[in-house]
Amino acid sequence: MPTKPISRFPVPDIAELPEDLRARILAVQEKSGFVPNVFLALAHRPDEFRAFFAYHDALMDKEGGITKAEREMIVVATSGANECQYCVVAHGAILRIRAKNPHLADQVAVNYRKADITPRQKAMLDFAMKVSRQAERVGDEDFAAMRAQGFTDEETWDVGAIASFFALSNRMANLTNMRPNDEFYLLGRVPKEAAPR
Amino acid sequence: MPTKPISRFPVPDIAELPEDLRARILAVQEKSGFVPNVFLALAHRPDEFRAFFAYHDALMDKEGGITKAEREMIVVATSGANECQYCVVAHGAILRIRAKNPHLADQVAVNYRKADITPRQKAMLDFAMKVSRQAERVGDEDFAAMRAQGFTDEETWDVGAIASFFALSNRMANLTNMRPNDEFYLLGRVPKEAAPR
Amino acid sequence: MPTKPISRFPVPDIAELPEDLRARILAVQEKSGFVPNVFLALAHRPDEFRAFFAYHDALMDKEGGITKAEREMIVVATSGANECQYCVVAHGAILRIRAKNPHLADQVAVNYRKADITPRQKAMLDFAMKVSRQAERVGDEDFAAMRAQGFTDEETWDVGAIASFFALSNRMANLTNMRPNDEFYLLGRVPKEAAPR
Amino acid sequence: MPTKPISRFPVPDIAELPEDLRARILAVQEKSGFVPNVFLALAHRPDEFRAFFAYHDALMDKEGGITKAEREMIVVATSGANECQYCVVAHGAILRIRAKNPHLADQVAVNYRKADITPRQKAMLDFAMKVSRQAERVGDEDFAAMRAQGFTDEETWDVGAIASFFALSNRMANLTNMRPNDEFYLLGRVPKEAAPR
Amino acid sequence: MPTKPISRFPVPDIAELPEDLRARILAVQEKSGFVPNVFLALAHRPDEFRAFFAYHDALMDKEGGITKAEREMIVVATSGANECQYCVVAHGAILRIRAKNPHLADQVAVNYRKADITPRQKAMLDFAMKVSRQAERVGDEDFAAMRAQGFTDEETWDVGAIASFFALSNRMANLTNMRPNDEFYLLGRVPKEAAPR
Amino acid sequence: MPTKPISRFPVPDIAELPEDLRARILAVQEKSGFVPNVFLALAHRPDEFRAFFAYHDALMDKEGGITKAEREMIVVATSGANECQYCVVAHGAILRIRAKNPHLADQVAVNYRKADITPRQKAMLDFAMKVSRQAERVGDEDFAAMRAQGFTDEETWDVGAIASFFALSNRMANLTNMRPNDEFYLLGRVPKEAAPR
Repeated sequence: MPTKPISRFPVPDIAELPEDLRARILAVQEKSGFVPNVFLALAHRPDEFRAFFAYHDALMDKEGGITKAEREMIVVATSGANECQYCVVAHGAILRIRAKNPHLADQVAVNYRKADITPRQKAMLDFAMKVSRQAERVGDEDFAAMRAQGFTDEETWDVGAIASFFALSNRMANLTNMRPNDEFYLLGRVPKEAAPR
Repeated sequence: MPTKPISRFPVPDIAELPEDLRARILAVQEKSGFVPNVFLALAHRPDEFRAFFAYHDALMDKEGGITKAEREMIVVATSGANECQYCVVAHGAILRIRAKNPHLADQVAVNYRKADITPRQKAMLDFAMKVSRQAERVGDEDFAAMRAQGFTDEETWDVGAIASFFALSNRMANLTNMRPNDEFYLLGRVPKEAAPR
Repeated sequence: MPTKPISRFPVPDIAELPEDLRARILAVQEKSGFVPNVFLALAHRPDEFRAFFAYHDALMDKEGGITKAEREMIVVATSGANECQYCVVAHGAILRIRAKNPHLADQVAVNYRKADITPRQKAMLDFAMKVSRQAERVGDEDFAAMRAQGFTDEETWDVGAIASFFALSNRMANLTNMRPNDEFYLLGRVPKEAAPR
Repeated sequence: MPTKPISRFPVPDIAELPEDLRARILAVQEKSGFVPNVFLALAHRPDEFRAFFAYHDALMDKEGGITKAEREMIVVATSGANECQYCVVAHGAILRIRAKNPHLADQVAVNYRKADITPRQKAMLDFAMKVSRQAERVGDEDFAAMRAQGFTDEETWDVGAIASFFALSNRMANLTNMRPNDEFYLLGRVPKEAAPR
Repeated sequence: MPTKPISRFPVPDIAELPEDLRARILAVQEKSGFVPNVFLALAHRPDEFRAFFAYHDALMDKEGGITKAEREMIVVATSGANECQYCVVAHGAILRIRAKNPHLADQVAVNYRKADITPRQKAMLDFAMKVSRQAERVGDEDFAAMRAQGFTDEETWDVGAIASFFALSNRMANLTNMRPNDEFYLLGRVPKEAAPR
Repeated sequence: MPTKPISRFPVPDIAELPEDLRARILAVQEKSGFVPNVFLALAHRPDEFRAFFAYHDALMDKEGGITKAEREMIVVATSGANECQYCVVAHGAILRIRAKNPHLADQVAVNYRKADITPRQKAMLDFAMKVSRQAERVGDEDFAAMRAQGFTDEETWDVGAIASFFALSNRMANLTNMRPNDEFYLLGRVPKEAAPR
């Protein structure tokens, strides 16, 4: 079967990128062992690349608030609803690693209502999905439902902002036909020693 | 995190099942190394169990026509659209094995339009998705589009019938909260020798 | 105006069918006075025919549980939502007969919320419609709503399973352009002695 | 089973209606043998009654243009999509009579794409349904499709205006829980001599 | 940029219209300073014109019940949902004038849930939107919600009837490509002395 | 009628903001005569503020490609579909100014298909709306339609990226109940000398 390219648009040579982009890409390669294609696809537009990852980091790497695994749940659930292949596969891998659970990502991507999550996490994903798919209807009753599960309003901002940012991210991935790296599919599924070389 | 049960309904003891159900279940266990939960969940109703698997086998095990891997693509794509966790996870595993491709199932489950498939397979999944989601609109133009890709009308029946059968199957899985077995998640992802014990 | 054929696919000669199909068809003809076209259209695929009617009988002819008229209400309501001409016309006739009510089927097919049914039947159809159209969202609260109306969980399985089976049936009818027999339109509308010969 | 009232709102006594309403109602009773409930339900608001029937007559009784049977097809198809029980049952009866066809109304109400109609009538109903359900998307290409089937733009206005008027009518019927008269269900289904007294 | 015509259909010369239409048009011109295009576009069909405006007046000019400004809110909110450019622009102007509020119409047209309205008005628009977009689901619980906000059932009829009438009106405007007059855009936005001549 | 606050979340005092945010806000105030509320609402989260406006500027202030007015058309059309009050009102004002057209924004917000735009702009908005509402379906045929209207693929990225960024922006505005400044409503509608003080 045919293999599709990384992006519908030209993918720049890393060596020719502006220094800050190259540094970021090499750092992620150093850490992960490969360069996730989102860096290559968006590097076609350096200014947008910088803003995209600054936004991403502000939401996903921020200290405090909901856990890192919960943030990835939001990404995977909303990206599933938006049919974004790149985000489901790539963030599915991160969710498996952060939650130390090899099954959760596939469950959440298909139907979070049936996943092995707590009622609190279910409420969080209900809110995230409403922001992702029907933000125009978000109202006081939705914030109240979050508070009833113990979320502060600041945490609810985090949940809604992550759903909003990936509304952008999912669209850019679908616009560019962004292809997930092969490496993501297996990450977090098997104990490291058993992973194929 | 909490682990959900196999089914919302009682799951019978294999030893107490009617002989034909027990024989079928033991045979699949012998072959697969485990009993897929769909057999246990549906065994709660032996008559429905028998009809369900007779229908399944008539469509999925039939000789000739579209390939076994293509049949699984139809299952995975339509089950993704119907948000059926059991079918995406279980048939995703079978698709990986039948297509000898560890990535295809995840791609097709999220967005078949972006998957590594041929234009002919894309047309097949367009047809299957129309039957699954808007069967009331299927018309001559859809059969013509299939013929333009070389499908016979009998093959188009197969495609539509598989989409129809899994419309039933997806609903039963969502009705019963059918839980995919842990074994499915990793099947077909790694060379057999590397799989964890 | 043009009259459309029974099926988009070839319709076999009854004399040339496998013995078990022929026997079943002759039995229904004996009982009803005509052969409903679903038997002819599906006889094109004997294995699928056998599984289809085995499943149908397991759900629709089973003793106990919700009444036969209520089962037909589920068929008519969900088939109306799925725009399945064959099922609305054919099962509309059966509903009229089973409910001994010449008006109910037309009401339920168009909008069950406005039909002459009890609140309990309204709840039953709410559940059936959710399984038919949004099964991925069925949850504990829906089972609770059924229990509040006195349905056992086993009866709720029946309701959901009938909605699921006709999700399949409606799609096969729309796929094959299955045509309702002329006889169905008037059945159960007039006292037998007044029916035209 | 319970029988629902004619309207959720008070139904006036014919004797106490303004003279013009009473005259119209008695005339229709004289002609039809019964008073269709839409007259009684809307008589609750005489000014709205007058405007409603003036609009109705301007579109449905107008000389020339598309046939009377075709106008009723538009009503039945769009009222089916809008789940308006009163309009499907009442205008279904009129369609049977005008088309001299006892089966057409049930076909068109459920899925006009599968009904025994000509390609020209199919195009007409495609247009009517677009006006009824997605008028915001009606554009030059839709008028071109009508012209390709031989409709003048004036006839296309008629088609669109009927779909528009019944968008109003369907909503009033659903708002008021307007109940179809029992008489409508059988009208046009049997030769007059065979109808029960 | 190109300027589109008043209507996709011929617009009659006022001098050649039937006397009653001409009188009505001249009266509105006298009062408003211009002839709103809806009068010109619908004058193409005098009988429909008469019924349309009779219906309009019965609902919008009626004494008592909900305020004139509230009626315009219903028009603007539902016309926004139906993407009717003419009605949003023209009735937006009337709403600004009737509510003596230069901002309310733009808020309500885009998302009434976020507009500067009272909870009672929010409930009124929830009801109107349900009639406009999902009338088939309107039920006792919706009337109860209106009563809880102090609306009589007669007022609820008004709300629903206005939503229903503009379901017709929006479709006719989209069918005919009815163009809002330039005058409407600024009406009610600036103190009269500051308006450009 | 009640006036709603700028944001559902706390709005910081400009004097207490980080220096770069304060500088940016004072610059926009200097230029526009007021501080658009989006700056105040997002200043609650300085890191997100920085990334948001960096992304905004990369897309909206970039030299070359589609015109500034066309970029605002994309914002207004997609924000209308997403029911984002802040973005329709604020960017509607900018569109009026950039297009030097007092009517275009209201037309595009309600239904761009009926607006006074060129066929090329219509195609651009068709593409933008598909990215905004159904990005998962964007494919080669959509890029081909853009090329047929003379857009380069780089310009098509711009169109899609703006639609994607405002998918984020619209959700943040709906999440925070962001309130448009009163000033926006009249901007670009009247010659400057006639605007009220």
